[in-house]
Amino acid sequence: MAFVNEDNITDLAIKRWSTAHSPRVAELMTALVRHIHDYAREVELTDQEWMAAIEWLTATGQISNDKRQEFILASDVVGLSMLVVQMNNRFDEKATPATVLGPFHIDDSPAAPFGFDMSEGITGTPLFVTGTVTDTAGAPIPGAVLDVWQADAEGTYEAQMPEIDEARLRAKYQTRADGTYCVRTIAPLGYTIPMDGPVGKLMTNTEISEYRPAHIHFMFEEAGYKRLITHLFQEDTDYLDTDVVFGVKDPLITAFIEHPAGPSPDGKTMDTPFLVAHYDFILQPDH
Amino acid sequence: MAFVNEDNITDLAIKRWSTAHSPRVAELMTALVRHIHDYAREVELTDQEWMAAIEWLTATGQISNDKRQEFILASDVVGLSMLVVQMNNRFDEKATPATVLGPFHIDDSPAAPFGFDMSEGITGTPLFVTGTVTDTAGAPIPGAVLDVWQADAEGTYEAQMPEIDEARLRAKYQTRADGTYCVRTIAPLGYTIPMDGPVGKLMTNTEISEYRPAHIHFMFEEAGYKRLITHLFQEDTDYLDTDVVFGVKDPLITAFIEHPAGPSPDGKTMDTPFLVAHYDFILQPDH
Repeated sequence: MAFVNEDNITDLAIKRWSTAHSPRVAELMTALVRHIHDYAREVELTDQEWMAAIEWLTATGQISNDKRQEFILASDVVGLSMLVVQMNNRFDEKATPATVLGPFHIDDSPAAPFGFDMSEGITGTPLFVTGTVTDTAGAPIPGAVLDVWQADAEGTYEAQMPEIDEARLRAKYQTRADGTYCVRTIAPLGYTIPMDGPVGKLMTNTEISEYRPAHIHFMFEEAGYKRLITHLFQEDTDYLDTDVVFGVKDPLITAFIEHPAGPSPDGKTMDTPFLVAHYDFILQPDH
Repeated sequence: MAFVNEDNITDLAIKRWSTAHSPRVAELMTALVRHIHDYAREVELTDQEWMAAIEWLTATGQISNDKRQEFILASDVVGLSMLVVQMNNRFDEKATPATVLGPFHIDDSPAAPFGFDMSEGITGTPLFVTGTVTDTAGAPIPGAVLDVWQADAEGTYEAQMPEIDEARLRAKYQTRADGTYCVRTIAPLGYTIPMDGPVGKLMTNTEISEYRPAHIHFMFEEAGYKRLITHLFQEDTDYLDTDVVFGVKDPLITAFIEHPAGPSPDGKTMDTPFLVAHYDFILQPDH
């Protein structure tokens, strides 16, 4: 009878998990077992470190709820989220690149007309984001839905505000027949990721910057195109090259141009100065 | 400015986590980042699989509480717990080997005199476990504490019974001046690990046996000796060679000998048949 020892345990564990009924689950689990064992052997993991890891994982699960996902945050700050995004979104170079979803997306945002102010009643510098949505050949995509969300001037998302029960700084816009869209919001600011949980506690023992550069989230799920989850970043804003979740890509950076009070991209007139960001999203066909 | 791409992200993430103030934390985190990225690249992890992993980890944290530790169970069934045990307990061959702690130990069990019946009032076949506790040179260790715990005839530990608030099938025995001890309990039975959580759900998609062979847990924390966390297994019991947590080692298997009603190892007389397991624990000096 072959009992376990330090030399044979990895092979025994791999052999067991290779019995998974789905070949893909067997592949995922056997590779996971091998990497976990290799890691433990390489660092000679101690009992105390193992228990600290168990406790960290448990706390990370327990702080998560329907408005906060600490494991996604953990995946973000070790670069795993962005690695997975890139492996699963190998678009043509001319398509708008994808970046991380982040933990703060909320499903079923309300539909909003062209130029709708999704920041109504919230303090900040007025910002219009306007441009077109096209395919990689430059053809406009009429009726494309832009699912938009962002943080407020305090860096807080609706998803972090349990007391809020209506949409706040999020909406679903649609392109017009010519592929143009217009979002009215406030200029986003850089902010720190939540530092009061297990991820933050780990990061305070490093020199890693906890900031994300100012950005607005966009998601597109159009039939006939690859899903695109991305951000727009403000040109020259802080933290672009130290983004804590590794999310910045050059083509996603755009200028926020200052305009005096007067005509605005929604076809109306502003009585205060405002910013305009022009951005053309290019979706990757899914065939 | 170096933005992130699929090729450079692993090096960027390793560089960041290398800034951990503690050299050991930097070592642990950079190796972790490397292995996590290598794993994701090797299996070409999809968005859906990544999200399934996030959800699995979250559920595993959330089902854990002060009486149930699903992450320890997860570590057990992939062989990580037993690997860590072995790396951290490289004892002399003649010392009693260590095995997994398991998720069901409860601190501060009550002190129990020689022969105390820790199974009083619980159904099962009476079992005496008796022998000596010595060092590796064979010298008895008087006053050594044996922290003992086990499951009942249903395979259930006190830690799984939230309604219980007094010690059940657990106690701390002490050796006498000559190093001898005597535990009275009931014969343990093989049992399944909890299959109603995320670990069980994963295992139902495999051919892995969810059973542990019959065993009793022992822990020794004696000044001057390495801590010993171990089990005794009943000879010829089921599941010895498929133990779901990889915990069985040859020197931990011992016969449970049947005795008719009559004198018992606690110095008293039993009016029913009973079992006796003789086992000599040998502790590894810590220098």
